Amino acid sequence: MTIKRTLLCIAMEAEAKPLIEKLKLTGDTSFFPPNTPFVCHRSEAVTVVCAGKDSATSVDNVGTVPASLMTYLALQRDEFDLVINAGTCGGFKSMGATIGGVFITTASANHDRRIEIPGTQFKEYGIGAIDSIATPNLTKLLKAKNGVCTTGNSLDHCKEDDEIMANNNASCKDMEAAAIASICKMCDVPHFGVKVVTDIVDGDRPPFEEFMENLGSAAQSLQATLPAVLDFVQGKTIEEL
Amino acid sequence: MTIKRTLLCIAMEAEAKPLIEKLKLTGDTSFFPPNTPFVCHRSEAVTVVCAGKDSATSVDNVGTVPASLMTYLALQRDEFDLVINAGTCGGFKSMGATIGGVFITTASANHDRRIEIPGTQFKEYGIGAIDSIATPNLTKLLKAKNGVCTTGNSLDHCKEDDEIMANNNASCKDMEAAAIASICKMCDVPHFGVKVVTDIVDGDRPPFEEFMENLGSAAQSLQATLPAVLDFVQGKTIEEL
Repeated sequence: MTIKRTLLCIAMEAEAKPLIEKLKLTGDTSFFPPNTPFVCHRSEAVTVVCAGKDSATSVDNVGTVPASLMTYLALQRDEFDLVINAGTCGGFKSMGATIGGVFITTASANHDRRIEIPGTQFKEYGIGAIDSIATPNLTKLLKAKNGVCTTGNSLDHCKEDDEIMANNNASCKDMEAAAIASICKMCDVPHFGVKVVTDIVDGDRPPFEEFMENLGSAAQSLQATLPAVLDFVQGKTIEEL
Repeated sequence: MTIKRTLLCIAMEAEAKPLIEKLKLTGDTSFFPPNTPFVCHRSEAVTVVCAGKDSATSVDNVGTVPASLMTYLALQRDEFDLVINAGTCGGFKSMGATIGGVFITTASANHDRRIEIPGTQFKEYGIGAIDSIATPNLTKLLKAKNGVCTTGNSLDHCKEDDEIMANNNASCKDMEAAAIASICKMCDVPHFGVKVVTDIVDGDRPPFEEFMENLGSAAQSLQATLPAVLDFVQGKTIEEL
């Protein structure tokens, strides 16, 4: 079976906007139930969903709870052959990350769900590691790096997060990947992530400074990368990626 | 408008089972989409939903991602006048918590979503404080305590969690309340939480030890408390609670 329709899950509007404009996607206000904040733009082959704005604070609905609900509601329509989680991330320079560089995920896992109950598998559940599909040809085409994306609901990272991110063998860090992956697994739809580095996790600058500085250029880098990704996947089988 | 149908959201099967048996609720396998792990038992007036088991590890699907999706899918049916988030929690002895004691929530907030970006309201979004409906008469009837429930995806708590839990003015700590509240707010359905204390957050024992010791007795306490809650709310208006 070849890939005909691809769902792109993007948390923030600023990450998605250049791509939506570039691909001339049309807003579809009937895609999501009206009580949700989620936003959809689409063409025949490509659907981009964003998590929308929080009603109380007007900031983007970042994090695992909106990302998972948005992804589930999109996949409930049973239209998609592939999910790509696209967006920005923190990168580990110890794993070769540079600002603006692109990672294609090999797996995702959580680093802020510490549930240690001896004699149970709650610890493994909390980590929730899920493989992405293999994309050797796409990775080569994009000259991207492969790596594990580690997910947590904080922009910063505490000592406990650092230990688990290291155990997760993470190359990059975001706030949604593991949640989106868990929904793709639930719905049995193949997925991977395309993440552009806005800040260095194992550097010496506060993440928010680099994040805000580089969000615009990273969105431009996403806009340059994602059309090539979408061109490549369209009409191919999962095994050909 | 009086309360005719109440949705009880409970994360763990062990927390729900005594109540399901006591109320003689019937399993409804058509309530949730078949690709979800969620479990529903119901009668005319009462619907109890649980997050089910994780396919990879067979442990309960605790935490905010499954809780929010389960709650959204239940509320999508547009049948419910009230949501009660029922379950166990850690309690703060500094706020009067004792093992087996019952809290009715006045609000919920997150303590593991640290998103500090100066000049934005991302910090407030991360905390995501949401008021529960007022339940002065129910609280009096149950001789329960009122308090804020603080939510995080870890069973333990790190230094950063402790600071935010204190800022949240928390009386009890769980892994789902703030996520369920965010969905109730999105769907405009009144909600509150009924939480029984299994372990002391600001004590000196590891939470998992007390949690495992007291999970059974807490579920029994929930089973004793929740029928009284359900009897009290049925046929009343939200303002009468």
